[in-house]
Amino acid sequence: MLRSRRNLQSRMRAVDLIRKKRDSGEHSREEIDFLISGYTRGDIPDYQMAAWLMATWIRGLNRSETAALTEAMLYSGEVVNLDRIPRKKVDKHSTGGVGDKTSLVLAPIVAAGGLTVPMISGRGLGHTGGTLDKLESIPGFNVNLSLEQFFSVLHECGMGLIGQTAQIAPADKKIYALRDATSTVENIGLICASIMSKKLAEGIDALVLDVKTGSGAFMKRDEDAVRLAELMVETGQRMGKKVVALITDMNQPLGRMAGHSNEIAECIDVLNGGGPADLVELSIELSAWMFFLGERTKSLEEGRHLAEKMIASGQAKEKFKRCIHLQGGDERVIDDPQLLPQARSHAEVASPSAGFIIATNCEQLGTALAMLGGGREKKEDTIDHAVGLEFRKRIGDRVEKDEPLATIHYNSGAKLAEAQSLIADSYQIGEAAPREKLPLIRRILGA
Amino acid sequence: MLRSRRNLQSRMRAVDLIRKKRDSGEHSREEIDFLISGYTRGDIPDYQMAAWLMATWIRGLNRSETAALTEAMLYSGEVVNLDRIPRKKVDKHSTGGVGDKTSLVLAPIVAAGGLTVPMISGRGLGHTGGTLDKLESIPGFNVNLSLEQFFSVLHECGMGLIGQTAQIAPADKKIYALRDATSTVENIGLICASIMSKKLAEGIDALVLDVKTGSGAFMKRDEDAVRLAELMVETGQRMGKKVVALITDMNQPLGRMAGHSNEIAECIDVLNGGGPADLVELSIELSAWMFFLGERTKSLEEGRHLAEKMIASGQAKEKFKRCIHLQGGDERVIDDPQLLPQARSHAEVASPSAGFIIATNCEQLGTALAMLGGGREKKEDTIDHAVGLEFRKRIGDRVEKDEPLATIHYNSGAKLAEAQSLIADSYQIGEAAPREKLPLIRRILGA
Repeated sequence: MLRSRRNLQSRMRAVDLIRKKRDSGEHSREEIDFLISGYTRGDIPDYQMAAWLMATWIRGLNRSETAALTEAMLYSGEVVNLDRIPRKKVDKHSTGGVGDKTSLVLAPIVAAGGLTVPMISGRGLGHTGGTLDKLESIPGFNVNLSLEQFFSVLHECGMGLIGQTAQIAPADKKIYALRDATSTVENIGLICASIMSKKLAEGIDALVLDVKTGSGAFMKRDEDAVRLAELMVETGQRMGKKVVALITDMNQPLGRMAGHSNEIAECIDVLNGGGPADLVELSIELSAWMFFLGERTKSLEEGRHLAEKMIASGQAKEKFKRCIHLQGGDERVIDDPQLLPQARSHAEVASPSAGFIIATNCEQLGTALAMLGGGREKKEDTIDHAVGLEFRKRIGDRVEKDEPLATIHYNSGAKLAEAQSLIADSYQIGEAAPREKLPLIRRILGA
Repeated sequence: MLRSRRNLQSRMRAVDLIRKKRDSGEHSREEIDFLISGYTRGDIPDYQMAAWLMATWIRGLNRSETAALTEAMLYSGEVVNLDRIPRKKVDKHSTGGVGDKTSLVLAPIVAAGGLTVPMISGRGLGHTGGTLDKLESIPGFNVNLSLEQFFSVLHECGMGLIGQTAQIAPADKKIYALRDATSTVENIGLICASIMSKKLAEGIDALVLDVKTGSGAFMKRDEDAVRLAELMVETGQRMGKKVVALITDMNQPLGRMAGHSNEIAECIDVLNGGGPADLVELSIELSAWMFFLGERTKSLEEGRHLAEKMIASGQAKEKFKRCIHLQGGDERVIDDPQLLPQARSHAEVASPSAGFIIATNCEQLGTALAMLGGGREKKEDTIDHAVGLEFRKRIGDRVEKDEPLATIHYNSGAKLAEAQSLIADSYQIGEAAPREKLPLIRRILGA
């Protein structure tokens, strides 16, 4: 069987498969295996993969092609084997946004509640932040564990947070870099395969997806977010995993803080029972789904109670502390967030007029943060973990002329004026408050 | 002015231009210059150009983009300066087919008639033959002249035939290799820019295009051939050249011979006043257009007479002989074609049934020739110049069962049976002759 499949593949040529997709053809599983394994090995050059990616971006992948691509990318590397850990393994993945820091709240909650959370996370790029970068604002925190070290952290405290290693889905790593350079990122089939291949390589039983929609999300329109969510849920379920997707609002930053140190501090607030309402609500809801899918609770409602209890009892906070310690970080930050890097200066962004906040250009707020050094414009850029934005007004809030919309924490004033005007410009101010308040959680798919 | 243009370009990024074309945007001249000059210099990598080519293949180029691309590719290298040669310089370009050998008939005719024909030609690939390969079947013939040597041959005998040098449109050379490997060949904007950039680099005053249509052409459908022809004519005229295009039939091979030695021999037949009617007709017609556009004659009719006179007087044949001599070849082949490489064996392809030839799969006939060693399947393949096909029946001809459709001249019998059956399969035989005879010359554009 394997032999005949290899024979079949030996007659394949990348140039013919590029042509097939160019002409809107549908790939077989064997064809996708041939492309992905050939590219990972280096037999298929970058330029052929780039042409195939562009043809695929424009012509699309159907559901079976997406599943085949996900599987080919997953098995391009190692799948973490967590069988020796008896508890259920669950994870959450977010499609990214501004101030989206729920991972650092829910991982401690869910680990404290009795499940294992093996998080392989990413870095920020463009207007969005990345979990790994945020963690690195904790002095000493090491996200570059080997799979062996990762396993032992998970074993010991039930949660661990690392970056994509060379062994995990190497095809995705190589393809993602190419997509970034060839404008072939925003395609739901390619996005789905990239996300799901990495998440399924974690060796998890269940996955909760947080698919963002709105002005600060990659998917600006609800219908695109729903399409991507459906595809990821179906792909994960085809591969025997429990998967649900929450479509959640990213028309404004999540919580009050965006940056690195300040987001860690805000997470600690939540784990101390405080923090902004939207961040608390979403973290509890995602945790509840993880408890429910991980069969820790019999209902979602029970999951919510368990999550709240893990905060109220301080167990979640202790879990985070333990994880920081095990990953080499200074766990004293939990009790003294001032130990996190602090910016030297701050400046306000004054409202140009009086009225109500009608909407924000949330992506632009993330871009302003990156411009100040608190994000990456290019992959090679380094991040100033101390830089951050504090959002003082939310959609629906009343604001007076010259009242601060946001506070900037910065170290270099080089682009301060530019960032200030970009931020001011990101707020749409009208005479009346918007009539309807959009719910934070829009839809739940796959439940 | 130049400075501000450079500043404009310095802010451009290939990734943004790829995105623009992906999203069906229209490129400015500056954007196309940036892409082509950056790629030629090596600043833009193959994978970005491959993604742009695929986006362009699918989304298309409009007329101004095509003109800008042609010009950018043309000026990526040297433009031959033939100002020191007082006579008008004219050339012909064919989009290629099976048995298409008119260049080797008309260049001697037109040079003998008093114009200069500076032909930079190509090699065969797939089912089509190439002028350079055919010339190399003449012992000693050197197609790799420097531009200086080329100039001196042109100066001395009014015609010269060389391959694309590294100095001529280097962007095209690099892009063409990439298109071949990424299934982005068949797009009229890209084809037009590739052809016209090379032809305009010859420093010509006028150009006659022979755009093939039918089962043996790249453009199988008349409407595609017409679209390509219109685009090339417009592009050439925008750049101040006299250009016409003839849309001509390639539903069956041109002449009786396909191969290398045997095509040279057939051309010599024509220059001796013989040869098959279709080849003679098309060669005269193309020559007449060259005379007319090159202002050697006042009318097309006068051009035809001049062309016929050049054959009848033997002047064209002498011109070819002189050119062969100047380019290092054995000019005795003109009087003794047996000096050309001869195949050791021959075999017939018998008709499987009696009836009339209704149609041929002309591309498949070219593929059979390549399979026997008389063409290239891949660019690296070497050619056996002695191998050839002689077509014994044409569309409309009566054929009996087992009567030969074609004769194969071959050296290696390895793929003989396969080629025989491919050739037999290429002929569609019906009970009655086709009612309508398609004209050899379908349309003339740009006149």
